[in-house]
Amino acid sequence: MRTVTKDTLTQAFLDYIGDDTDPRTRFVLESLVRHLHDFATETMLTHEEWRKGLELLMKAGEISSPHRNEFVLFSDVLGLSSLVDMLHSEPDSTPSSVLGPFHILGAPTLPVGGNMKADNDGAAIIVSGIVKSTDGTPISGAEIEIWQTADNGLYSNMDPDQEDYNLRAHMVVGDDGRYAFTTVRPAPYIVPDDGPVGELLDATGRQPWRPSHLHFIITAPGHRTLVTEVFPSDDPYLDQDAVFGVREKLVMEYIEQTDLNNIPNGIADSDKIQAPYFTVDFDFVLGAE
Amino acid sequence: MRTVTKDTLTQAFLDYIGDDTDPRTRFVLESLVRHLHDFATETMLTHEEWRKGLELLMKAGEISSPHRNEFVLFSDVLGLSSLVDMLHSEPDSTPSSVLGPFHILGAPTLPVGGNMKADNDGAAIIVSGIVKSTDGTPISGAEIEIWQTADNGLYSNMDPDQEDYNLRAHMVVGDDGRYAFTTVRPAPYIVPDDGPVGELLDATGRQPWRPSHLHFIITAPGHRTLVTEVFPSDDPYLDQDAVFGVREKLVMEYIEQTDLNNIPNGIADSDKIQAPYFTVDFDFVLGAE
Repeated sequence: MRTVTKDTLTQAFLDYIGDDTDPRTRFVLESLVRHLHDFATETMLTHEEWRKGLELLMKAGEISSPHRNEFVLFSDVLGLSSLVDMLHSEPDSTPSSVLGPFHILGAPTLPVGGNMKADNDGAAIIVSGIVKSTDGTPISGAEIEIWQTADNGLYSNMDPDQEDYNLRAHMVVGDDGRYAFTTVRPAPYIVPDDGPVGELLDATGRQPWRPSHLHFIITAPGHRTLVTEVFPSDDPYLDQDAVFGVREKLVMEYIEQTDLNNIPNGIADSDKIQAPYFTVDFDFVLGAE
Repeated sequence: MRTVTKDTLTQAFLDYIGDDTDPRTRFVLESLVRHLHDFATETMLTHEEWRKGLELLMKAGEISSPHRNEFVLFSDVLGLSSLVDMLHSEPDSTPSSVLGPFHILGAPTLPVGGNMKADNDGAAIIVSGIVKSTDGTPISGAEIEIWQTADNGLYSNMDPDQEDYNLRAHMVVGDDGRYAFTTVRPAPYIVPDDGPVGELLDATGRQPWRPSHLHFIITAPGHRTLVTEVFPSDDPYLDQDAVFGVREKLVMEYIEQTDLNNIPNGIADSDKIQAPYFTVDFDFVLGAE
């Protein structure tokens, strides 16, 4: 390409791609490189800015570890993770939302109606609802993974003061598709902001907070796996989630209850619940596979 | 942003940017994120592809070190590095080209006409020319850094069999702007292809070779620093440089000489040069600062 110029470079890149290349790989790469080149051209990207960008990537590599993925965090705060979720959400199903970095495998099984709150501080919340197909049929045997922060804003695997698997559970629903558990209200927290993502947030006057949420992964034969999170309607960060994870359909209402007679049937340890407590009713709709 | 959708996400990102943000930072980020989101939307990027991209970045971080920058290499093979060079090249000046990862500071000073070949294998090449301004005036006192591979395709800092600073020099030109040195022909080589960049090249049927070249950095007061490389016109990889570094104006002619009387004046150790040898005449034109 001795005659390559800024106007022919993108085509030169495309001409390099071999004939045997997987067509989808070629399509994705062509789009990626066209946008990358258009970005540089449109901004007349300087050498200094190019170096700064590469430095941020290098720092992301340095701060990443088996316990922290700064590249995923970049994707999150730039809205890319949520966009990929939204591109593949179906209008009739519960929207998916970011998995986040705090999920771990092997949570203990909790029966429907079980007590996940245990000794955790905070008011009791009883979360319940139906897992169903888009036609409204309950999905018998659907499996649910649940995880959340304690009221200090930390997940069990970030907090040496919490027991392993605290506020994490695996639940299998019965024929009625109903799930239910008692827990505490999760707390808002900040995404890790001591690395290059923090530099980006700082440089653009952005705050690192996420609204509080409960994480769910729901799997059922014949249905698309749903990875999502649900948010309380009164969270102060609901409209400024640092990672763009909130969707209108993922907002749940915490209803304050003062009458202990309003505790639903089949809730374990209901005698330990004190007023005021909260109830949350939230159904999950899974698309067909 | 509880009402964020795939159609409003880009605007939501832009709305997050604080009012006090540096305008250039805002402009560059807006362009970057618009293109990133358009890329994902246009390709309907899947979760699997998203994870694959992030995995390549994570691997790039793991294989990078103070001696290897896989992110720069990604930028190189995607054409971004060359595009940034070309966007800021001036038509009347010698084009810039990629710095590459093999430059080190502190090369020994070689007088004009000096012998950089020393004991290196290979035919002698006498490279000479004028460093000048765009109006043709020689630039007195311009400083030149030169580095290149030996004929095994390795730079001194990659090859334990070469002495430190082998085939590296720093030269200061006189009032006539003339530089000259004797060396050996550098060799084509492959970019590191044992990491994620190699995976990308493999997946797209690309070869990792770069044509042979001499690297130069030229600095002079009142002029823009020139970082460039020059390539022999007969190199087999001239039209398929893996990093898009070749420009037509950076191609030099090696002229084979059989008559020792054609050795230019002022060449050190000229009695050690055997026929056939080669001469290269190449001028550098520096833009005003």
